[in-house]
Amino acid sequence: MAYSTTGVTLQMFKDQLLKGRIQNMSASQERFDSVCAKAREAMVLHSTADTLEWDERTGMPIAAGDYRAQQISMLRALVHELRTDAGYGENLQQLVEDLKDEDPHEPRVATVRQLHRDWQRDCKLPTALVEQISQATVRGQQKWDAARQADDFSIFENTLENIVDLKREAGSRLSEGTNQSVYEALLDEYEPGAKVDEIQQVFDDLRTPLVQLIAAIRDAPKQPDTGILERTYCIDDQRDFSHHVAEQIGFDFERGRLDETSHPFCTTLGPHDCRILTRYDPHWLPAGLFGTMHEAGHGMYEQGLRSDWFGLPPGSYASLGIHESQSRLWENQVGRSRSFWEWLYPQTSDTFQSQLEGVSLDAFYFAINTVRPSLIRVEADEATYNLHIIIRFDLERQLIDGSLSVKDLPEAWNTRYESDLGIRPPSDADGVLQDVHWSAGLIGYFPTYTLGNAAAAQLFAAASEQIGDLDELFARGEFRLLLDWLRERIHFDGQCYSGTELIERATGKPLNATDLVKYLQAKLEPLYGIAGS
Amino acid sequence: MAYSTTGVTLQMFKDQLLKGRIQNMSASQERFDSVCAKAREAMVLHSTADTLEWDERTGMPIAAGDYRAQQISMLRALVHELRTDAGYGENLQQLVEDLKDEDPHEPRVATVRQLHRDWQRDCKLPTALVEQISQATVRGQQKWDAARQADDFSIFENTLENIVDLKREAGSRLSEGTNQSVYEALLDEYEPGAKVDEIQQVFDDLRTPLVQLIAAIRDAPKQPDTGILERTYCIDDQRDFSHHVAEQIGFDFERGRLDETSHPFCTTLGPHDCRILTRYDPHWLPAGLFGTMHEAGHGMYEQGLRSDWFGLPPGSYASLGIHESQSRLWENQVGRSRSFWEWLYPQTSDTFQSQLEGVSLDAFYFAINTVRPSLIRVEADEATYNLHIIIRFDLERQLIDGSLSVKDLPEAWNTRYESDLGIRPPSDADGVLQDVHWSAGLIGYFPTYTLGNAAAAQLFAAASEQIGDLDELFARGEFRLLLDWLRERIHFDGQCYSGTELIERATGKPLNATDLVKYLQAKLEPLYGIAGS
Repeated sequence: MAYSTTGVTLQMFKDQLLKGRIQNMSASQERFDSVCAKAREAMVLHSTADTLEWDERTGMPIAAGDYRAQQISMLRALVHELRTDAGYGENLQQLVEDLKDEDPHEPRVATVRQLHRDWQRDCKLPTALVEQISQATVRGQQKWDAARQADDFSIFENTLENIVDLKREAGSRLSEGTNQSVYEALLDEYEPGAKVDEIQQVFDDLRTPLVQLIAAIRDAPKQPDTGILERTYCIDDQRDFSHHVAEQIGFDFERGRLDETSHPFCTTLGPHDCRILTRYDPHWLPAGLFGTMHEAGHGMYEQGLRSDWFGLPPGSYASLGIHESQSRLWENQVGRSRSFWEWLYPQTSDTFQSQLEGVSLDAFYFAINTVRPSLIRVEADEATYNLHIIIRFDLERQLIDGSLSVKDLPEAWNTRYESDLGIRPPSDADGVLQDVHWSAGLIGYFPTYTLGNAAAAQLFAAASEQIGDLDELFARGEFRLLLDWLRERIHFDGQCYSGTELIERATGKPLNATDLVKYLQAKLEPLYGIAGS
Repeated sequence: MAYSTTGVTLQMFKDQLLKGRIQNMSASQERFDSVCAKAREAMVLHSTADTLEWDERTGMPIAAGDYRAQQISMLRALVHELRTDAGYGENLQQLVEDLKDEDPHEPRVATVRQLHRDWQRDCKLPTALVEQISQATVRGQQKWDAARQADDFSIFENTLENIVDLKREAGSRLSEGTNQSVYEALLDEYEPGAKVDEIQQVFDDLRTPLVQLIAAIRDAPKQPDTGILERTYCIDDQRDFSHHVAEQIGFDFERGRLDETSHPFCTTLGPHDCRILTRYDPHWLPAGLFGTMHEAGHGMYEQGLRSDWFGLPPGSYASLGIHESQSRLWENQVGRSRSFWEWLYPQTSDTFQSQLEGVSLDAFYFAINTVRPSLIRVEADEATYNLHIIIRFDLERQLIDGSLSVKDLPEAWNTRYESDLGIRPPSDADGVLQDVHWSAGLIGYFPTYTLGNAAAAQLFAAASEQIGDLDELFARGEFRLLLDWLRERIHFDGQCYSGTELIERATGKPLNATDLVKYLQAKLEPLYGIAGS
């Protein structure tokens, strides 16, 4: 495969040559081109494996799982081989040296920094371990699916135990030579540079006011009628409607598609190929609709990355927290705002005439902003959602440090739900088996959801200040200005800045819980008729 | 990837050792295991590329084409590298020597013979040429699609010219050191060992009686009312109905799926993952229904191959002619028989009540057996179909030998349709642009369709003789005995026998046109009320 980045890099190396910083411009430029070519080659195979996974989760024949696992693990092994190539690593080390005095946010410097970081991490993991994890997690997802359908954790138990052991080993190897804990080394995969203490601080700042707000809501004089969302909403209509909404807010269907799966996600299979997936519940309208807006938010971030840098850090998302800030902003700050429904409700009540006959905009708006402790994270409201995350954050750290065994996980899960949310899951399917993450080896991933929620509120507050009256725009179905603001402040830079840096640059302050608390209070207190704190 | 075939091969090598035919049993066995492992590894990547192509043709976002072409061509290049590995070739050559006195139809001997043949062919093609063809054909399909939609051959012309040049070069290289012509060397890819002269003979034997039959039908006293098939058949209902029919005749949906695409096909993505694709026309019921039965016939062949030999010759289809014999047999000999409709028509008229009200079984049966010269091959009836193939067979040989240029192809196409079928295509979309094959580099592929038609009739005649009254079985929806007969006589052996050998073993005579001519006359003459010849 021949990829040339010569054009864009020439000037930088010329500049350096003039400054006397590198001895041999063409050698340094060749090195840069070579590492980019290798990284892009790895991405071709990586995105191929992702395509196979997308297919696995959108209707692959049930008996095809074993062979699919072989295919994916072979591709992942080839990717790992390319990314840990010794010559590639030497080039990166030399380039780090060549560019050490350059602007760290310049795309080419960021490319070298991030690829070097990835290379260092990849080299710490032996190929055999990577293959074991790949096989374990492909099987893990199959076993998880079977366990969930049978509502029987024991089907999944051994597989999960194996996954936890393998991830612990990976974390332990990754943490070598760093000041990270084993868990932080895993977390670093999803939220580069994040510290457990800092996350704990944001979570603590969020927890107290949230618990107060949720308690006040429970006892509030006004309560929504959620029954209107539980009427029978035909899936065909929901599908068309969700497609329409995703398109209107800015998801580009020439460069993406929307499908259905049991556990919604977003995956990018090429520079112009972003796939979002949702699921529809005929008796719960918000599941499909807000699920789609959520995934469309992820998708618009991916579509806003620079396609000419696809497969390289400047064309890749900054962190999962940043990714989640985009999905939650579109799902909640936009999708659950009153002004958004001033625009969309007439179309909604037109599409679902019989279901929404006689239902006012205000009643609908109140219903989609219901706050009520529940069992399923992906269907949780904005306020209680973060309590779901805090439980998972705590439990997965215990699994990794060995203070909780997989065997005892369902009981620990149920106990925490009872103490934190006041409800005990009646079954594993609605409890510990609800999320795909651990079955896919995604340990250290959950906290990024709440980091994303905090970032979404903080970004939205800043956008409102800088753009002006967003409500007026939403009320007439105009989302382009907000999307462009996000493109410019967040999407465009890829990994040229860290997640933390992006938030600080866009909002003028470090990530914190304040805006999220304020946003929730400002919306929910008047709705429920409770006094502000 | 570790694949072990030790268990199944041990005995053979032990036998040979006892006979003193090989010096070192374990060395020979290791060689065999090594070539099988390599071939299966190549198949993992090959089937991955096929998965990407399946996805490309089932809804990939429109802008994703360029990157997808890169992915596929990189995978194809990796496959080519594995299959032309020098050590692999040396092992195969040694194994050919080791096994030269063994039963050639024994699975392990067939494995070595066929892999050695493939290796010899693959080595004749330089990697650069393989990559060029891969890229040209991925783009070719995109351009073909665009040209077809714009009904403008010129959009596709340059790309096709490039493909023909590259395939001519490939054929020329492949024919080196053989007694094959350039075209035969290309044909050999799809119908191993086939000779142009032999094909010409079958085609000639078919042509004269077919032309007579078609002429008699044109002037026949009775004519069907095809209007009943042109009423509006809702696509959702067609989809469900086709799924039901495919399942009833024996396609296994736990090991396969049915989807929609612009140009129907069947592809196998793993030992338990066969994908069939059809297209529905709301105003032409036969398109979707018989398209599905056709692809299900292909799919059942794939599902009947031995999954433990997946990726190796004993688990691979014998030839495209044999493949087509299976699809045509289910589509025509079964699907267009009166007894089949005795079973299915009550369900059909129940599903499509308003469209088929007052339409008798006989009227429906006559309509689906309409014979009438038409423009589109895939929608052609059983009798005229073969004339479509003969045109393509002639034209593609002229493209390869240079006596026809791509520029002149549309005119040559239209002229032949006028002379052979009596109708001139009013547009390229309904003419030379209708088939995907040439855009995909499939030159030498078309004749296998008519070879398959002849084989289907010959196999069906033999099955009727050996099983007994098939009509009685079909009339009560019983297809298992026929499928089992095909599994045992054709599917099970994979490539242990050649296509020609399989037909001769199953029917007791070499492939010929007689049974097809007899079958068509026996069905069509009474329907149209014409005297037998």
